[in-house]
Parts: sequence; structure tokens; C-alpha cells
Amino acid sequence: MTGNLTLLTDFYELTMMQGYFKNQTNETVVFDAFYRNNPSGSGYAICAGLEQVIKYIKELNFDYDDIAYLRSLNMFDEDFLDYLAGFHFTGDIYAIPEGTVVFPMEPLVKVVAPIMEAQLVETAILNIINHQSLIATKASRVCFAAQGDPIMEFGLRRAQGPDAGTLGARAAVIGGCAGTSNVLCAKEFQIPALGTHAHSWIMSFPDELTAFRKYAELYPTNTTLLVDTYDTLRSGVPNAIKVFSELKEAGKMPSAYGIRLDSGDLAYLSKKARQMLDAAGFTDATICASSDLDEYLIDSLKTQNAAINSWGVGTNLITSKDCPSFGGVYKLAAIKRNGEFIPKIKLSENTWKITNPGNKTIYRIYDKETNKIKADLISLVTDTIDPTKPLMLFDPIATWKKTLLQPNTYEVREILIPIFQNGQCVYESPSVMDIQAYCKKEQSTLWDETRRLINPQEVYVDLSNNLWNIKNDLLSSLNSI
Amino acid sequence: MTGNLTLLTDFYELTMMQGYFKNQTNETVVFDAFYRNNPSGSGYAICAGLEQVIKYIKELNFDYDDIAYLRSLNMFDEDFLDYLAGFHFTGDIYAIPEGTVVFPMEPLVKVVAPIMEAQLVETAILNIINHQSLIATKASRVCFAAQGDPIMEFGLRRAQGPDAGTLGARAAVIGGCAGTSNVLCAKEFQIPALGTHAHSWIMSFPDELTAFRKYAELYPTNTTLLVDTYDTLRSGVPNAIKVFSELKEAGKMPSAYGIRLDSGDLAYLSKKARQMLDAAGFTDATICASSDLDEYLIDSLKTQNAAINSWGVGTNLITSKDCPSFGGVYKLAAIKRNGEFIPKIKLSENTWKITNPGNKTIYRIYDKETNKIKADLISLVTDTIDPTKPLMLFDPIATWKKTLLQPNTYEVREILIPIFQNGQCVYESPSVMDIQAYCKKEQSTLWDETRRLINPQEVYVDLSNNLWNIKNDLLSSLNSI
Repeated sequence: MTGNLTLLTDFYELTMMQGYFKNQTNETVVFDAFYRNNPSGSGYAICAGLEQVIKYIKELNFDYDDIAYLRSLNMFDEDFLDYLAGFHFTGDIYAIPEGTVVFPMEPLVKVVAPIMEAQLVETAILNIINHQSLIATKASRVCFAAQGDPIMEFGLRRAQGPDAGTLGARAAVIGGCAGTSNVLCAKEFQIPALGTHAHSWIMSFPDELTAFRKYAELYPTNTTLLVDTYDTLRSGVPNAIKVFSELKEAGKMPSAYGIRLDSGDLAYLSKKARQMLDAAGFTDATICASSDLDEYLIDSLKTQNAAINSWGVGTNLITSKDCPSFGGVYKLAAIKRNGEFIPKIKLSENTWKITNPGNKTIYRIYDKETNKIKADLISLVTDTIDPTKPLMLFDPIATWKKTLLQPNTYEVREILIPIFQNGQCVYESPSVMDIQAYCKKEQSTLWDETRRLINPQEVYVDLSNNLWNIKNDLLSSLNSI
Repeated sequence: MTGNLTLLTDFYELTMMQGYFKNQTNETVVFDAFYRNNPSGSGYAICAGLEQVIKYIKELNFDYDDIAYLRSLNMFDEDFLDYLAGFHFTGDIYAIPEGTVVFPMEPLVKVVAPIMEAQLVETAILNIINHQSLIATKASRVCFAAQGDPIMEFGLRRAQGPDAGTLGARAAVIGGCAGTSNVLCAKEFQIPALGTHAHSWIMSFPDELTAFRKYAELYPTNTTLLVDTYDTLRSGVPNAIKVFSELKEAGKMPSAYGIRLDSGDLAYLSKKARQMLDAAGFTDATICASSDLDEYLIDSLKTQNAAINSWGVGTNLITSKDCPSFGGVYKLAAIKRNGEFIPKIKLSENTWKITNPGNKTIYRIYDKETNKIKADLISLVTDTIDPTKPLMLFDPIATWKKTLLQPNTYEVREILIPIFQNGQCVYESPSVMDIQAYCKKEQSTLWDETRRLINPQEVYVDLSNNLWNIKNDLLSSLNSI
């Protein structure tokens, strides 16, 4: 993600900005970026992309070319273009740190800024957060299915453009992948670059055995041989064993070695290959598999006792194929008037599409004994929770469903934290590998019942008493119009 | 798509390159980038992305940082890194021009280059062509469903990262969209920037009517009002009519005006809104609709006689939601030895995955009378066709299925054309709007039976006699090993 992204916005943001400019109604507002459904039927999502959002906000700047282009559209007046030429972001941004597990309706990013600024940044914030949260969530599911085996991200060639390949691989590593085949991503974010050779390597030599020998000679410490170019069990595996035997005899056994299967019945082939490798004494040879894998196929291969202990996942992960969009939205929640935030609500015929009004934060409530999440409480920023006192949680729709938390049995963490204050960045992004480690811990705060692939248990996302009251009052007043 | 993309490649391309370097086996080879199945069940695809492939090839250059990074991995020797530091592309590239209708198994891009170069560029070529061809094809389907109504591309916020939004919108316009909401894309590729205002515009004013009046005042030539913030038929449409009436009375009727529906039952609401607008004398008001649309929903709305004549399509188009990857592959087809191209084939247990060997081109055969495509003939570059002579076409699998074309009843066009020769670009990309116009003509060479959304008639892609013979000989010789 490079170059000037200031114009990476929907055209209507600019036409509305000019409207606020002309009407001199540049009030400070609160916008929430949140989503309504977890992707892929998941019980949770992993938020990601904040580092790129920060970069985007810092670099916001209409350059000479941008202004000239906008002028050429004959829609914008010179006074407004002058304003744009001097534009920079002056507001506050709060966000949930990357790698955190999140749930529907929670503001992942909250922008508190003059409406002209808050409106401009809508599209890019959604684009970045939607994309990376989608892929991080998918990766988390794939890694869960692999039960601790390493997952290699191999999807660059099928990603939706260069950024999707590079930022998608970044998100996949946040979600738990061991590394990526994408060299640009590996370099940019200091994550492991992975991969060995393709069928074309084998085909460019007179025969498979020669190709394997040459490869082993070149990469003596990590020798993974692709065995399915001609015939996996009759040619590929026997030739690989021959090369491993030669290395052994020569006292040059690689520290890491094995085979890769890229087609055919992976359960059958991996078990047969394992038998052949074991019989030849190569019991520690890795068997890596790739071939249109996703979390369900890996889960199924595990059930079939496939002898695979390393996985390459491409298309289905890098595009989140079964659910290729995250669906995050960006909604006006409050307008500041006379120093006070006036809550705003967007109605909809679909009740679940009604937004949560007000200037909000999120308190995450953990069970003190298990350290698992008990519930998230979307609250007003003025709300406080004292864990030495009892806390009543209630379902925001079926309000009779209540849970009383006893004093000192729970802990509270505010998960929405300051990123920009008065236009200045006050947050430093951790490295991707540090985010990965944090994300692993985050996932351990979920029960397996929430992590399971199909029909997961939902985590409660409730509203604080004060927020619920404000929302209900607003709905009543609007319905009585 | 900016910045140095030289490392936008799979790690194994570099490990293989070093292998060829060390073995001094940098032979000239032919690689084909082709795909096996049309996306979304389509009867055809639209190829796109060539302009970005050209940019990528021209800018290939390992800079100081890239070399330092690769050195840090302790996998690459200094002699190879020296070679990379001086790397530039010296080969030939052939491609099918953007906007052309294409079919499975046809090389969309053919690289003829020393294998080290041909291997390096694999991943980026596939990434770019796969992505843009996917979105151009989807756009073509959406436009077909809309039966000539304009389609606005609105997907940036749901695209898989910044490039997916910008290059995806470019591809969508090639496939037929009238323009995009993405300002960066509109600027970069000189295509129309489209859009009006969001719900937040309405919500930031004391009431809807004021918000509409202010908007109409600001944009007096093109006034489209979003009518579903509170209640479409009881508030939005009546308020819009009130504003249009005021403009009419003041003699300030906009040249283009109308309403946008963004939620609810679009068929019902559009018909009711049409009645209300017509009754007030605004028979030429546009009714635009958006709301998770795709080709099937548009087709259904047309069947229901929805009164919609302009469409905004977001998520489902920009991600090609039902089929978010194109599946293009890049396979070795020949190796040059002693001045001759030796054909190479990749076997597979799935017969349809077997590749077409040799240095090939594609002849497209048109019916002279209708100008529709009769068939494509994948041929060797040494094959020629003389349309004044009869031409026998046969199915490459069921070879008894034959068609004899009579002399002078057909025309032939070679669709794979030179893009780079000896590393020099010999092709200039047309503007996106020119590609769109060309693509429209291209689609007119298909029968409606091939364009239909579901279960389309397939276009014949046959092999020339010589290519078929070479392929069969290779298969026989490999099977007898």
C-alpha cells in the first residue's frame, strides 16, 4: 500500500464535504466503523488493518494533481479547493488493537472529528479494516482446523490485486499463519518467506530424479521436494527417498526435509507416502500438502488421519472464498453541540440494522477464574464499571434474559483505545509477529465452543444500562413523529 | 498499483531462479498463462489487466533494499544477488488485448524468455490478470442483466484492499460500468466519478427536507436525492417531490435529477415511487437503486418490472462475491533447444488438467455473415489458416465431432499479439474508456445464448491438427515410460 491514497474515497464524500463547507456546518461528530455479522459463519472475528489506517491518516494530503483533477470536474468551487489544499486530519481516532477478537456491533474504529474530516476518511478506513479483518478471521479458522500444524500462506497469484496479496498475507499471519510465499510482504513486514519449487522446476530437467538432486544440492538445510509432477507414488516419492538416502549416506542430511503433495487424494497419498518414508527410515520427513485447501478440507483430512503435518493454503484463504467481504459499515452516532454529544440513530425496517447511538466505548468482561470472555458491554464513554460491585448484564432485545455477575468474580478491560488525538498519532503499531503472538493469546480467551467451525456459540454483546435507555428513548421519539 | 513491485513474487520463484543460475541452465522457454473455467458459471470471460502487467514488467528492478533483504535470508549467494542487481526483462510477451472475450484453455499471456526471467514474473502476471479479468467478467454479466441501464461501481469500501478497489473499478468499467464512486480510480484512469450523498448527510441536518433543499442548492445540475433514511414512501419520496417542485417553480429544474433507493423491497418501492413522481409531473426523474445487488437480483427486478433505470452495484461486483477468484495458472509449454521449441506437457490424473504443449497462438474464427464467433482454434505459431479454403474443426476430446467450414464463409483473426519483444514494449495500451468501447463490440460477437446468466452455451475452443498431433504423441510417449 504505497502512493498518495488521499483520493481513495467515494466521490460523495467530497460532494458532501463541499456541502458542509458551504453551509458552514462543520460540526464535530462521532462515526463508528462496525460490522453486523461474523464472516464465514464464524463465532468471532479478528480485527486487523490498523497499521495501514494510521499510515493513511498520517499521509492524508491533497497534492497539486489531486486539486487540479477535482477542479477539472466543474463540481467544486475554488474556496473549497483551497480548503482541501490545506487539509489535514485534526480529529481523534479510537480503535481496537489489531489481533483482538471482536464481535458484531462493536465499533472497531471510532472517529471523533469535524464532519468534513470524518466523512472523507470513511471509505479508506472501511476498505482497509474490512479487508484485513476478513483475512485474519479466515486464517484464524484455518489454523484452528490445522490443530497446531503450521499453515503457509500461498495465495498471492489468486489475490484480488497486489495489495490484496500483500496486505492479505499480513492479515493471514496475524490470524496465525507461519509465513507467506509473498516475498514483498515478507520483506515489508518482517515475516518468514516460505516456499520451495514448482512443477516447472521438475519439468525443466531431463527427469525428476535429476531435478530433485539438483534442488537438494542447492538448498542443503531445508529440502522439500514436490512429488506430484508425474506420478506421486510410483515416481515422486520413490525418487525423493532415493535423494534423501543419498544425502544420508553422504552424511549431508538436511536439518529440515520432506515432500509436498499438490494434487490427488491427499488423505490416501499422504498415508502411503508416510509408510514409504517411514519404511526407508525417514520418520521425521515433513509431509506438506497444498491444493485448494480451506478450514473444512483440513478438518476433514484430520478426521481421515491424513499424514500431513504442514499445510499450504492459497486461494480460499487469500480471498476468503466462501465469504469474500467483511461487511463493515460506518455510521453517524453523535453530533457535538454546545460541548455535548447528542446521540443520533439510523432507523431501518430491519430492526437488527438499527445503529447504536452516542459516543461509546467497549468494556470486555472476563471470568476471573478461567480468563475467558463472559461478555462485551457496549457502553457510553461516561459509563464506568467497578468489578468489586455486582454487575447486571441483560440481552438488548430480550431484556428479560439477565445475568448477575458477583463482585470480584470478573475483570474488565476497555478494548477501544486512543490512536489519534487532535490529529496526532499517539499509538505505535507492534510488529506483525508481535501482533500474531497477541492474537494467539486473544483466541485463548474464547471457549472452543465459540471457535468451532460450524454453528459456534455466540459471545454476548450487551449494551450498558445508560446506552440502552438512550437508544430506547430515541426510538420512541422517532416513532412518534 | 504503485511502488516497487519487483518482490511481488512467490519465494520459490527466487529459489528456482538461483537454481537455474547455479546450474547455468537459463534456457529460453514458453510459459502460458491460461484458465480452466469461466467464473460465476459464465459462458465467457473478459480479459483485463494488461496495462498493469506492462507497467510491472517495465519497472522490474531489484533495488538496494531488495538485495539487502534477500541477502539477510542467508539463502542466496553473492554471485546470484549480483545477477539480480542487474536484472531486467529481456524476453518476449504476447497477450490478448484487454476487453477481449476469452475462453478456457486459451493463453491470455504468453511469455517467451530465459527461464529465470519467465519464472520471476509468473506470480505478478497471474495476480494482475486473474484479478482484473475476474471483475471485468462479473461487470459484463451485471451489465447484461441491466439491459442497457447504466451501472455505477460503488464497491470501494468492501474491496479487498486499496488496489482491489482501484484496479477492480478499472476492470468493472472495462466490463461495461458507466463509472465508479472511487475518486482515485476515476482520476488515474480518466473515467467518470459518480455519487451523491449518504445517510449521514440527511442525519446531520435537523430534518430530511432541509437536507434535500441544501443538496439541490449545491448541485443544481445533477440532483439525486437519497430517500430511505427515515421512511421511503412516507417521508423520502414526498420530500424529494417537494424539492423538485420548488426547483420547477423557481425555473431551476436540474438537467439530471431523481432519487436513490438503498434499502427495502426495491421492486415495490420503485414502482410506488414512480407513480408518485409521475403524478407530480416528474416523469423523467431517474430512479436509482443500490443494496447488495448482483446480476441475478437485477435480472429478477427487471422481471418484476421494477421502475429502476440506474443501478449502483458494490460488494458483489467488486469482490465477484459468488466466485472471488479467477483460477488462472502459468504452465511451461516449451523449451528452446538448438533453435527449436521442444513442446512440454504437464500430466495430471484429471485429464482436463493436462496442458497444451508447444509455442502457440490463437486464431479466432468468425462467421462472415453474422460476425459472431464460430470457434477459437488454439494452434502452433507455425500453423496458418487460409479462409479461401475449407477448414475442418474437431472436438479435441470427442474427435469424431467435426464441423467443416466452407471457403469464404468465415474470417480469421489472431488474438494473441506481441506486447514485448526482446524486453522492449511494442504495444501501447488504449484508454480505459476506449477499451470499454472495444469490449462492448467484443461482446456483440457472442450469441445471447452464450451471454445468458445461467447454463450458457459454450463456445468451441478447438486445437489445430498439428497441435493435436503433438499433444497426442507426447501423451503416448509419456504413458509408455
